[in-house]
Amino acid sequence: MVELVTKQEWLDNWQINRRLTRKVIEAFPEKELFEFSVGGMRPFSKIVDELIYLGVIALRQFSENEIIIFENHDNYAGKTKAEILSNWDKLTEQINTFFANTSLERFREEFNVFGMFNYPIIHNLDYLLQNEIHHRGQGYVYLRALGIEPPAFYSEF
Amino acid sequence: MVELVTKQEWLDNWQINRRLTRKVIEAFPEKELFEFSVGGMRPFSKIVDELIYLGVIALRQFSENEIIIFENHDNYAGKTKAEILSNWDKLTEQINTFFANTSLERFREEFNVFGMFNYPIIHNLDYLLQNEIHHRGQGYVYLRALGIEPPAFYSEF
Repeated sequence: MVELVTKQEWLDNWQINRRLTRKVIEAFPEKELFEFSVGGMRPFSKIVDELIYLGVIALRQFSENEIIIFENHDNYAGKTKAEILSNWDKLTEQINTFFANTSLERFREEFNVFGMFNYPIIHNLDYLLQNEIHHRGQGYVYLRALGIEPPAFYSEF
Repeated sequence: MVELVTKQEWLDNWQINRRLTRKVIEAFPEKELFEFSVGGMRPFSKIVDELIYLGVIALRQFSENEIIIFENHDNYAGKTKAEILSNWDKLTEQINTFFANTSLERFREEFNVFGMFNYPIIHNLDYLLQNEIHHRGQGYVYLRALGIEPPAFYSEF
């Protein structure tokens, strides 16, 4: 049977997006990554805290089939840009391992991630991806407001 | 066979995202929709010109199986917020019709949309969706910079 989107394509698309987000993190100067924002919003480091926290803890819940309650994740990604990028890359590997070890059937099972969102695992992952794209778009505006040319949106596609 | 994502789920997710983008358009005051921006970027109306243009012209190409070359689309979405919202809703119907009339096999066929991107149709649609989320994230920052509370990102999910 023809599949609309295969597991491998879905994974590839997420990792393509994650490479682009990594470039956005890299584009921030160290100080501005942790301090700069527009309109009273979070600095980009706090967004990356959220992205890495959600990714790591969601995969752990899906793998171990145990709910972990959402909690404060300030500085979860790290306290320097280098530390953040290193944690970003660790999650890249964890995602690849999760996809390699998880069956198509499992992706369709409902799991109440963080005890809050009871949907098929693939829907929960889709939300993580879309949340990342959403916040990365916010990061693009921060970079422009800093006078920094962001990586081309299309660069990884 | 289990499918990772069904055609109906993919469509529903796009329309959920489009309802959220519609709320973001609505949240802008008339004048600021066409004039306000941050960091020298486009006002949100020009982003919506792009989103509606890409959607309408991509679907036409997939349906008629003929390439249309990408061209200038200033004011494609309309010159007032009411006109933009009306064109947004027309595209909503066109998307529903396209999905109803298009086979799973067709979604997997490569098509060189705008003579520029030769990928399976579902990949091209995925790009449209992710481009929309990216630019909507930009719109959130514009609203915050205007002191306007944007619609909750989670509101439609």
